[in-house]
Order: sequence, then C-alpha cells, then structure tokens
Amino acid sequence: MLTGVQVVLAGGDARQLEVIRRLTEQDASITICGFDRLETSFPGVVRAEWQPSVLRQADALVLPPVGTDDDGTISAIFTERELKLTDDFMDALPKSCKIYCGLAKTYLRKLAEKHHIKLVELFERDDVAIYNSIPTAEGAVMMAIQNTDITIHGSNCIVLGLGRTGLTLARTLQGLGAKVKTGVRGEDLFARAYEMGFEPFYVPDLARQTGNIDLLFNTIPNMIITAQVIAGLPLRAVIIDLASKPGGTDFRFAEKRGIKALLAPSLPGIVAPKTAGRIIANGLIQMLLEDDRQRGNAT
Amino acid sequence: MLTGVQVVLAGGDARQLEVIRRLTEQDASITICGFDRLETSFPGVVRAEWQPSVLRQADALVLPPVGTDDDGTISAIFTERELKLTDDFMDALPKSCKIYCGLAKTYLRKLAEKHHIKLVELFERDDVAIYNSIPTAEGAVMMAIQNTDITIHGSNCIVLGLGRTGLTLARTLQGLGAKVKTGVRGEDLFARAYEMGFEPFYVPDLARQTGNIDLLFNTIPNMIITAQVIAGLPLRAVIIDLASKPGGTDFRFAEKRGIKALLAPSLPGIVAPKTAGRIIANGLIQMLLEDDRQRGNAT
Repeated sequence: MLTGVQVVLAGGDARQLEVIRRLTEQDASITICGFDRLETSFPGVVRAEWQPSVLRQADALVLPPVGTDDDGTISAIFTERELKLTDDFMDALPKSCKIYCGLAKTYLRKLAEKHHIKLVELFERDDVAIYNSIPTAEGAVMMAIQNTDITIHGSNCIVLGLGRTGLTLARTLQGLGAKVKTGVRGEDLFARAYEMGFEPFYVPDLARQTGNIDLLFNTIPNMIITAQVIAGLPLRAVIIDLASKPGGTDFRFAEKRGIKALLAPSLPGIVAPKTAGRIIANGLIQMLLEDDRQRGNAT
Repeated sequence: MLTGVQVVLAGGDARQLEVIRRLTEQDASITICGFDRLETSFPGVVRAEWQPSVLRQADALVLPPVGTDDDGTISAIFTERELKLTDDFMDALPKSCKIYCGLAKTYLRKLAEKHHIKLVELFERDDVAIYNSIPTAEGAVMMAIQNTDITIHGSNCIVLGLGRTGLTLARTLQGLGAKVKTGVRGEDLFARAYEMGFEPFYVPDLARQTGNIDLLFNTIPNMIITAQVIAGLPLRAVIIDLASKPGGTDFRFAEKRGIKALLAPSLPGIVAPKTAGRIIANGLIQMLLEDDRQRGNAT
C-alpha cells in the first residue's frame, strides 16, 4: 500500500484516470491539477490549482506519458487552462521528490538535471515497454486494416527490429495468418525468429527482401527505409513506421514514388486508453512502493 | 479458360474490378454496364449502356454481391445513372443464362423464379463463405479495437455461433491473445471448440456466461442477444453483431441500458475490397468453368 505517500498528478488524458483510480486503491494521498472539466468524482482525491505551493509536500510528481513539450507545457485535455512546468515549480519540489513520465523530452530532462530532481521515464523500463507493445501492435494492425485493400491474413509482411515492440507485432501478425519476415541484427535474434516460424533476414539485406511485400512495419529508430529500399517496393506496399519521431523512413521519397507511408502516432493512448493507463499505473505503483520501502529503510 | 463465354457485369463497387480482371485473364468475352465514371482501362472489355439488348447473348449476368435492392435497383458506385433489373431485361436473357450475385433479396429471387432463370448465390457456397469470413473477422477486429478502450489481447470475448464466420473469428481473437468463450449448439461443435482451446458453452446458457465479458460477437441470425442477456452484461461490454440484417440483438434495449451495440455492415468490401473481389472472382470462375464444361458435354 502507498498510505501516506503524497502524489501530485498534473495534466494528461484518459490514461491518467486509470492511474488515479489505481493510486486511490493503494491509499496514496492524491492531488490532481488540470482536471477541472472532468466530471468523474474520485473519492478522497484533492483537486487543486496548478501553482508551486501544491508541490511542497510531494513525494512524486506524475506527468502525462509525454512529460512536457519543448517549452515546458504539460498537455492536459481535461482543462482549458495552461499547465507549465517552470523553475518556480521545480524550486517548490522537495529534493527527495521524483518526477514520473513516460518518455521525457530535452526540456524536461534539462530542467530536472538543473534542479537535481530525479526524473523517471516509465517507458524505459523493459516490462512497461513490453506491456505497452500490446496496444501498439493492435494499433498497427488497425492501421494496416484501414490502409490496405487486402486482408492481413495471407499478406506478405516485414517487421524491422525484433525488440520489445517488433516481437509483439510479428507475433500478432502471425496470429492473424500473415506471412512474416523479420529484419534482425545479431545471430541470436535470427535464431529466435527462425524458431518462432518467422522468416528472418539481416537488416543490411533489407533492399533484397522487399520484392513481394504488402506491408512493411518499422520499429528501428534510425533511417532504415531509405530511398533505395522504397525504390524496390511494389507500388501497392504500405509502410507503417512505429519508431518514435521522426521515424526511420524517407517519407519524402515515399510520397514522390506514390507509396503510402505512415508515421504511427503513439498508439496505446488512442486504441486502448484504459489498458494503457493500467500499464502506466502498474509500473508507477511498483516504483512508488519501492521508493517508499527505501524511505522506510532510511528512517 | 473461359474462351467464348459471354459474361455481362452490371454495377458494383471496387470488388467487381478484381472480378473483371480475373475474367479477362480467363479470356471470357466481357461486357460491363455501369462503369462509365471508372478510368481504369480493361483491354478487350466492352463498355455498354444498361439496356435489355446487351443481355441477348449472355451466358452469365454478374450482379454486385448484394444483387439488387427491393425495387430491383443494382447498386453501382462507378456511374451516376440508375441500373434496374426489370422484366424487360429478364425477357432478353437466354433461358440458359444464369444470374450470379453474393446473396439475393426477395425481389431478385422472385424475378428469377418468374422468368425461369437460374439464380446462383455465391455466398451460399461453403468455400466462398469461409474465404469471406477472413475479411469479415478482420473487420470485426477493427471494430473492436475502435470501439473499446482496452486491448483485445487479454480481453474476455464471447463468439456466438461456430459456423463459417464464427470459427474464423474465434481463432482470430485467440491469435490476438483474447480469452475466447464460444456459444455453440451440438455436442460435436462443443468438442471441437474444446479441442481448439476455446471455452465452449451451449447457447441456451448464454445469460449465465456474460458476467465479465468485454466483447460479445454474434454470428447467429436469430434474436439471441435478448433483453435478458443484455441485462446481465457489464456496462463496459460492447456487442458486435455480424449476423445479416436485422442481426440477432435487441438493439433497442441495449441502447436503453447504455450498452454499445453495433450491427456490422458487410465488412469484406469495406476492409479488404481487393481480397473480397478475388474471393468472388475465384468462386465465380469455378462455377462458370463448370457450366461451360456441362454445355460442352451437352453439345
């Protein structure tokens, strides 16, 4: 249980509702900012204005998955007011407080560093990233169904990268009856892909693998679907790039060649906000419990 | 090959383009009506006005999957003119000509009977229905992803009916990691469902199976998701009814209780028109080849 742990949640979307619900179950002391348009009532939760004083007792400041944008704005769909994380707020935070988000941008990273506040990026955790890969794969499947005129069943797919997201996606496509080739680096992943019934190849051979491809999924965050690769794709092929912005595709060249190429947005919050919220809540609670245990041991 | 076989195609959507393409490959003599807004060129295919004389030499009249509507109108998205199948047209058809569609409505059935013309409903064929169940299942998955805030993976699903569509859908959901219960009639299907790792139950027990259900799919074309069943569903549950109109759900009561219930449209033409067209073309060509063989044997 998180009895007595002071958590401040600032901003966010439907996913944070699940986080609030789960923190309540754990008996944390919760203050939420940026939820004034939300009508759901959360018994025992304090609603407050976003001002530095709200952070004075905080053990944890929970930001939305994206953290802040590049000028410190915290996205908050349940309010019309602007929430910004600035020096004033950071000065108000106890030095022992940690800031939690999904993945941080440079602004937030630098701010935390400057104020010697520990920043925790939940999506860097392997377990959270693997759980999150499930809604990501389902979102990718949805995009594939919407953007092709064929079924995924029986289609020729390539998944680039067999990491946390790539493996889930390859298995999901296989489960739907697609023929799946996987582009990997390293003999171990090649062997694993073979064992799992995928047709593996090494990433540098990509341009030789694309002749009859219907769907090309990328999870590798480097420029990998180059003009040369795109030039070898059939015109019917659709590229779905799941790597974080700016993706790993030469989108300009794809457009020029008339090949549909889509940079997927962050899918979990779109296709399964409740599941995505639960994943964040589980990861967060586990870390807060650990922090609390350490504080207990220290006193 | 279908050399010398006279086929007239009237109306339809993107699926018929695949049919035209495949019939061309088989060297049939093809006349198309209701495609004037279409810019694709089909070498050797004759474009004609929809008038009775066009049918005089026909061995086969191919209508869109839905046949005609209840006043004889043939849906045709590639023209603004109206195509209607009336007595004049039926009189022009040689008695040996067959009419092909997916599934016929009463109007078309009665008209064919009156004029002693054989009507072939392709979707009644088991093989065609099974192939068609693949895009149907993918469309159902897409609807489920779009209409829930959780992932299909890990969700509790029920599929009612383990026929041609139900079996495909149950397997597809299982492939995505859902927990799938199947409502069946008959000990053989119960055993098969058990063997396949589904949790089977008999349809009359439905109301006792729905306590923790996230997604309820129906493929049985009778009123089966009654008010009593709906009353026992959790409020978060989503009903996706794949049975042909009017479906098997008490939609009025679902709305009253605030439970999302969707009657799926014909999904193959929406989510995978090219695959759906290929399925129709394959079934059609097989039947035309058989007809041609019989005509050859008779002369």
